[in-house]
Amino acid sequence: MQITQFLRRAVQTHGDGIATRMGERSQSWHQFADRAARLAGAMQGLGLQRGDRVGILALNSDRYLEAFFGLATAGVIFVPINTRLAPPEIVFWLADSGCAGVLVDDAFAPVLASIRPQTPELRHVVHIGDGPTPDGMLAYEDLLAAAAPAADAGAGGSDIVGIFYTGGTTGRSKGVMLSHDNIVGNALNMLKEVPVEASSCYIHAAPMFHIADGAMTFLMTAYGASHRFLARFDPVAMMQLVARERVTHSLIVPTMINMLVNHPELAAHDMSSLAWMLFGASPMPEALLRRALATLPGTKFMQAYGQSEASPCLTLMPPQFLALEGPHAGRLKSAGLGLAGLDIAILDEDDREVPRGTVGEVCARGNVVMQGYWKQPELTAQALRNGWLHTGDGGTMDADGFIYIVDRVKDMIITGGENVYSAEVEEALYSHPAVAECAVIGVPDAQWGERVHAVVRFKPEREASEAELIAHCRARIAGYKLPRSVSVTAEALPLSGAGKILKTELRKPFWAGHSRGVA
Amino acid sequence: MQITQFLRRAVQTHGDGIATRMGERSQSWHQFADRAARLAGAMQGLGLQRGDRVGILALNSDRYLEAFFGLATAGVIFVPINTRLAPPEIVFWLADSGCAGVLVDDAFAPVLASIRPQTPELRHVVHIGDGPTPDGMLAYEDLLAAAAPAADAGAGGSDIVGIFYTGGTTGRSKGVMLSHDNIVGNALNMLKEVPVEASSCYIHAAPMFHIADGAMTFLMTAYGASHRFLARFDPVAMMQLVARERVTHSLIVPTMINMLVNHPELAAHDMSSLAWMLFGASPMPEALLRRALATLPGTKFMQAYGQSEASPCLTLMPPQFLALEGPHAGRLKSAGLGLAGLDIAILDEDDREVPRGTVGEVCARGNVVMQGYWKQPELTAQALRNGWLHTGDGGTMDADGFIYIVDRVKDMIITGGENVYSAEVEEALYSHPAVAECAVIGVPDAQWGERVHAVVRFKPEREASEAELIAHCRARIAGYKLPRSVSVTAEALPLSGAGKILKTELRKPFWAGHSRGVA
Repeated sequence: MQITQFLRRAVQTHGDGIATRMGERSQSWHQFADRAARLAGAMQGLGLQRGDRVGILALNSDRYLEAFFGLATAGVIFVPINTRLAPPEIVFWLADSGCAGVLVDDAFAPVLASIRPQTPELRHVVHIGDGPTPDGMLAYEDLLAAAAPAADAGAGGSDIVGIFYTGGTTGRSKGVMLSHDNIVGNALNMLKEVPVEASSCYIHAAPMFHIADGAMTFLMTAYGASHRFLARFDPVAMMQLVARERVTHSLIVPTMINMLVNHPELAAHDMSSLAWMLFGASPMPEALLRRALATLPGTKFMQAYGQSEASPCLTLMPPQFLALEGPHAGRLKSAGLGLAGLDIAILDEDDREVPRGTVGEVCARGNVVMQGYWKQPELTAQALRNGWLHTGDGGTMDADGFIYIVDRVKDMIITGGENVYSAEVEEALYSHPAVAECAVIGVPDAQWGERVHAVVRFKPEREASEAELIAHCRARIAGYKLPRSVSVTAEALPLSGAGKILKTELRKPFWAGHSRGVA
Repeated sequence: MQITQFLRRAVQTHGDGIATRMGERSQSWHQFADRAARLAGAMQGLGLQRGDRVGILALNSDRYLEAFFGLATAGVIFVPINTRLAPPEIVFWLADSGCAGVLVDDAFAPVLASIRPQTPELRHVVHIGDGPTPDGMLAYEDLLAAAAPAADAGAGGSDIVGIFYTGGTTGRSKGVMLSHDNIVGNALNMLKEVPVEASSCYIHAAPMFHIADGAMTFLMTAYGASHRFLARFDPVAMMQLVARERVTHSLIVPTMINMLVNHPELAAHDMSSLAWMLFGASPMPEALLRRALATLPGTKFMQAYGQSEASPCLTLMPPQFLALEGPHAGRLKSAGLGLAGLDIAILDEDDREVPRGTVGEVCARGNVVMQGYWKQPELTAQALRNGWLHTGDGGTMDADGFIYIVDRVKDMIITGGENVYSAEVEEALYSHPAVAECAVIGVPDAQWGERVHAVVRFKPEREASEAELIAHCRARIAGYKLPRSVSVTAEALPLSGAGKILKTELRKPFWAGHSRGVA
C-alpha cells in the first residue's frame, strides 16, 4: 500500500470536492493532486532521489498537507520537525536524518537561515510561506509552476514514508521510521471507529508535525473529507473556524479541550457541527469531561492512546464507554480497546502475558508497528524484541479487554500533549556548574495535565536561583521542556538497589490524591 | 498481521460471548480458542509442519470455522474444497495443492473414501462429522481431547494462510494463494462500510469453502460477533435460523435472495433482526431489488464486488446508493466504490488508465491482492503484471468513482453465484466423439442470473442428443458447470481476426434486452 492511494481515492470519488481551505485559499482534490504531483516533480528536478529525506519546519497549513503527499509521491521521506525546538535541536534533527532539503514557512525562515551554516548536508531550502522568499531559499509557488507533474515513484509497502522524531531517554531525540503500510494501516484500523464521510471536515488544530494529528490526516483524505487548518492552536480561533467552516472532526489534547470548554466566548460560537472530538496524550479528568459534555452536547468524545512508534494509534475508547452514568460508566480512566489490525497485550519482563488486572508493559504487534529507529539498530532491537513493540507504558487490561495506562515505564512527562523525556532536561541541568544531582519529574498541573518539575541538589558551596537554572536550560532545549518549578534538597536523592534515582519516591508528595497516566 | 489476531481479539474483548451455535452445540470464544489451539496441537502431533497443506471438504459448520483458526495457528495452509465438485476434480485439487491431510464431514466421507487410492500424498483424513468415524479416518473430537493446546506457530504477514481454488480458463482450476495480510486487509477495508459489533450475529448461508463467505468470517470474528451456520443454503432454513437466533448479518448471492423474498413462507418468519444483507457475484435485477426492499424493509442491502484473487472484496456499494428513488437513484447497476486499502482503476491493454466512462479492465493494487497462483508462476505474472491485479472483468468508472462491470474479459459464466469457466465445459464437450466445434456461453436465466449454454457443431455424419452430451459432461465436471441447454448449428462458429470464436456474436440473440454483468 501507499499513502498516495488515499489521495487517488479522494480524487477518484470526490475530485471536485474541497480538499483544503485556509484563509482565502481553497482548492479541489483535483487541484490538490496536481500540486502534489508538481511538488514531486520539483523535488526530482532538484535531484532528490527515492529514499532521500526532506524536513518540514512550519506551522500548520494547506502547504504542509501538500508536502506529505508531494514528497511521498516522489518517494522522498518527510521529516516533520517539532516547531517548539531550540535551534541546536533543529540542527540535530536535520543532521541526524540527513535531510537534503527542508520546507520552511515564514515563522521559521529566520531560524532556519541562522542555523544553515551548521547543516552542510542541507542543499535546498524551499520557502512555503506567504511572505517574500528570503535570499538563498527557493519559492514554493515558482517551483510548482515550473515543474511537470511527476508520476508516483512507486515507494510503498514497507518503504519508509516519514521519520517522526520523539524524545530520547538518553537525552537525544530518535527518529521513528514509519512505512507506507504503517500509516495506511493506522487509517484502516481507525476507520471502523471514527465515522468519516466525504462531507466530513477536519480541523488540524494540534500540530501537524506530530503523528497524533497524522492519525486523522490520512483517513480523512481517503474518504475525500475536507481539511481546515489552525496555524497554531488558539481556542478562539478554533471556535471561529469550527463555526464558519462547519468543522465536524478534531483531534486535540485535554489541555486544549480545557482551554476551549472553559473559555468565556464558547457560548457565542456555533459549535453544533463538531460531531467528533478525539483526544490523546492523557486521560480527561472527570471534572473536565463533565464540563465538556455539558458545553458541547452535540460532540462525541473519543480517547485515543498510542505513540509515534505505533503510527500512532493502539487503542480507541468508543464514546459510549466514556460515560459518567449508565451501564458503561466507570471506565473514564480507560484508554479503550485495541484496534482490529493489531494484537495488544500486557506483558511481564519476560514478555509473557500477565493475568487480567495485573500491571505489566503495554505491548503491541501488527500493522502499525514502526520499522525501527533511524540509524539506531540497538534501540530498535530493544523496542521490538520478541516480535512485540514495547511501549514503555505500564498498564492493565480488564476482563473486557479495556486497557488502563497506570504508569510510564519510560521516564517521560506529558505536558500539554508534548512528550518530555526527563533525561534530556536532566542533561541540560547537569551542564550547569552548580548542579550536583538532579531529577526531573512530572507533577500534576491543572492546565497542562503534568508540568516539568526539577529536584536539584547543589555542589558544596555552590547554588543557583530557579530563574538562573531555567535560563541555563533555555539555551539548550525547547521551551516546552523547561522546568516550570524547581525544588532544592540538601539530601542525596533516594536510590534504588540498582543505583537508579527512585523517582517514584520523589513524585509521591506531588501526586497524593491525583491519578497519573498516559492515555 | 495474522488472522489469528482476530480470534485473540474476540477472546480478549468478549471471551464469554457466544462464538458459535449450531443445533444444540454452543461455545464461548474462550472455548472456541481452546479448541482451535488443540486442533493446532493435534496437527503438529500428526507431524504437520508450517507451510503444509490441509484440505477441508465439508458443508458449513462450526467445525469449519474452528478449522480456519486451528490450522492457521499451526501455520498449516488450509485448502477449502468446493463441495459441488465431481470426484476427479476433488482429486485434482488435493493433488495439485499437495494436501497432506483433509478434514471431511459426514456428507463427504464416502466420496473421500472412494478417491483416497488416487491421492497418495494424503496421509491423514480427519472426520469432523457428527456420525460415527469411518474406518481409516481420525475422529476429530478424540484428536482434540488428546492434544495439548499449541501456541501460535508464528505464521503471518505475507505467509500463505489459505489456497482458494478458482476455475481455470485453461480448463483446470488454479489455486489462489492468500496471505494473512490479505485476509486481515480485506476485513479492515470492509469494517468501515459494514457496521459490526459484538452483539452482531452472522449466518454462514453461502458456502464456507468460498472466500466470498470468508469476506465476512474474519471481520465478524475480530469484533467478537457470533456465528451461525446453515449446512447448505435453503430459504426456509435460513428464515427459521434468522428468526430464532436474531441473526443480524448475511452475505448471499442474488439467486438466494430471490428464493428468499419470493418464498410464500417469508411473511411467517420474523426477519426484523436482519439489518445487513451483503450480496455478490452479480447485480440484483431491479424487480428483485424492489421485491427485496418491500419484503425485508428493515434490511440494508449492500452489493459487493470482487474475486478470490482479491481476498475477495474490491468494491462495496453503500446502501444509500442502492436506491430506487431519490437523489442517489440510478446507480443500481454499479458495483460501488473501491475500498480504502486499495487502488482501483480501469486500465487499457497497456495498463494505462482510461478516461471516466470508457470501458477497460478493472484492475487493483493494495492489501487484498493475492500472493499468486499456486505453482503457476506464469499465470501469476500475467495476472499481476505491471503491479496491478487484472481481474479479467471489463468495466467503467463514473465521475464519482462508482464502478460498473460491463463484461467479463475472462471467459466465465456466473450461475447462481458459482463461477464456471467456459473452457472447462468446452473441454468436456470436446471429449465427446461427435463434437466438431463448440462454444459455451452464459445466457440470461430468471433463476440463476445466467445459465450455462452450449453451441455445438457436430462432425460430419455424427450427432448426439442434448441429454447425451450433458450426461457425457456429468462424468467429468461438477453438476453446476453442466450445460443447461444446447443449440446445434451446421455452420462453422464465427471467428475473430485472431481466429478466436466470437462469443459476443453467439451471445447477442440471447442477451437482447438484458444487461449482463458481474458485480
